[in-house]
Amino acid sequence: MYRSDIGIVSAGTGLPGEAIGTAALAERFGFGTPWEHWVNTFIGTTSRHLAIDLETGEARATLADLGEEAGRKALESAGLEPGDIDLVVMGTATPDLLMPATVNQIADRLGIDGVPSFQLQSGCSGAVQAMHVASQLLSTGQYRTALVLGGDVCAKHVVPDADFSRLPPAELVNLVLFGDGAGAVVLRREPDPGAALLRGLFTRLVGLGREPGQTLAWYGANRTFDRPAATEDYKAIEERVPVMAVEVLKELLENLDWSEADLGYLLPPQLSGRMSTLIGERLAVPHARQITRVHEIGNCGNGLVFFQLERALEAMGAGDRAVGVAIESSKWIKSGFALERT
Amino acid sequence: MYRSDIGIVSAGTGLPGEAIGTAALAERFGFGTPWEHWVNTFIGTTSRHLAIDLETGEARATLADLGEEAGRKALESAGLEPGDIDLVVMGTATPDLLMPATVNQIADRLGIDGVPSFQLQSGCSGAVQAMHVASQLLSTGQYRTALVLGGDVCAKHVVPDADFSRLPPAELVNLVLFGDGAGAVVLRREPDPGAALLRGLFTRLVGLGREPGQTLAWYGANRTFDRPAATEDYKAIEERVPVMAVEVLKELLENLDWSEADLGYLLPPQLSGRMSTLIGERLAVPHARQITRVHEIGNCGNGLVFFQLERALEAMGAGDRAVGVAIESSKWIKSGFALERT
Repeated sequence: MYRSDIGIVSAGTGLPGEAIGTAALAERFGFGTPWEHWVNTFIGTTSRHLAIDLETGEARATLADLGEEAGRKALESAGLEPGDIDLVVMGTATPDLLMPATVNQIADRLGIDGVPSFQLQSGCSGAVQAMHVASQLLSTGQYRTALVLGGDVCAKHVVPDADFSRLPPAELVNLVLFGDGAGAVVLRREPDPGAALLRGLFTRLVGLGREPGQTLAWYGANRTFDRPAATEDYKAIEERVPVMAVEVLKELLENLDWSEADLGYLLPPQLSGRMSTLIGERLAVPHARQITRVHEIGNCGNGLVFFQLERALEAMGAGDRAVGVAIESSKWIKSGFALERT
Repeated sequence: MYRSDIGIVSAGTGLPGEAIGTAALAERFGFGTPWEHWVNTFIGTTSRHLAIDLETGEARATLADLGEEAGRKALESAGLEPGDIDLVVMGTATPDLLMPATVNQIADRLGIDGVPSFQLQSGCSGAVQAMHVASQLLSTGQYRTALVLGGDVCAKHVVPDADFSRLPPAELVNLVLFGDGAGAVVLRREPDPGAALLRGLFTRLVGLGREPGQTLAWYGANRTFDRPAATEDYKAIEERVPVMAVEVLKELLENLDWSEADLGYLLPPQLSGRMSTLIGERLAVPHARQITRVHEIGNCGNGLVFFQLERALEAMGAGDRAVGVAIESSKWIKSGFALERT
């Protein structure tokens, strides 16, 4: 675990269009109310935002659009100008293009220039990975302030003219589980008193000899669609993610010498509404208030932790402590962080 | 500029199949010897390796295959075991999948686990970006040894059954310019005496208000091919890259208080054989031996700097100094580094 006193001084988020409730999905797919109730009960994700219009197939937003919105809000909330940013780091699984990296398009739109910028190719651990890189680079003393971004837009993998009623559940569930969105935080070395400090953080690959729990493909101009766009091993995910989440929480608390009773807030992994609730129960920190957003915005991959952080920063008072946990099932990555408002 | 005394202790590279000379391309495309001579003279890239068989369309290698080979060679050359690696950072524009990141597949194959791993979405500056992140993370004291990888495999964007003789030159030139390949270096904090030390390094986005000089798209399951796979603004690239390269060299020398006469080796940007020669002349370091690989292996993006470094490490004796420059034209990124063998 890496210890720091880098501050998270603000957060911002961006979502495309209006929330799409499960009832609207049921209608679009030609399913009835029983399906809607089943989804809301057993998946627990009751709405999501999509960067594609499911009726017309038109794109509503790019990742750069959502990241720009999130980044602009985070800068405004921190009271900073683009020229105050010394470093930009972003995580995403679904960049708008392979080149240029979306982080550089966003930097351009925000007026940020002349600084190092990095974009990580990452999944559910991407927000923590991006904070990891940014906070360690800040800690070298080379930079004072970093804009950290993350998000995903799954629109390229949604086939709007598909006959949804004939899709197998294993494919259809992706349209229920996932949502599009992006978020951002401003990290600052030597922040003003009262900032929430990143007391500890780690990311760790633990995939040796294990098949990926999740894959996401891209296709090229040769139009060889030789593998499915997305695969998930839900059995492996349901078995392993809760166990790994408990291990991450324990490791953070032990390394910081914090007890569970010290925790005011818990930001659990955000797979689906129901999984987040189950994992939250298993994490057994009954006094902590859980901050979960996935049930209302869907799993927006690299974005979700920022949506949780936005709420946590609003809620945390002086002396409050929080732990966030994110597990990436792609090739199995543990990640987590600990926050304390001074 | 970031100063360090992190050592580059070894390098390794991987290329798919045999070298494909321009004569073989001319034959495959149905062109004659005049075209071959024209390419060799005015592009200056006389051979390249491809991860796809242009006759059959079959894939010869993935990025994970090439990265594994490069990483294994770098570890062996450093005399290190997988368990000695505390951190893995990779740069690529063309990951095998969007998830998992290819860096994690390579780590698995090499037996590296339980460490942070990061994959940057990057173009020609990717090798320097990856060394930037890795060397700064090493400098925090949290880690001792990093494996840094980079490479690209353009096979997904090559359409082997296309009628090449009818492609416009702007598309055909990509098949002449680009090649596939990957490389790796081992970076070490407090290396043994005699290591080549990374004395200075920087990467910097300078794209504010400028259109990308190069774009590379990916397509999803919805099969909307709404933009070309690759675009290049060759006029902008030819105008700006040499100027930026000179600026990077100057900045490194000034910050290190090195003179041009101090430089034993120069690793110029690797766009094409001819451009690298032109830029090399413009950099005006007549005493430095230039290390250029692009004429024989093509522009393999995130891989090329490692191929140059492999040669530089072999060549540099005690006290020798080298500067490497890489310019990314996607959204315009300056990057460079300075090496000194102690």
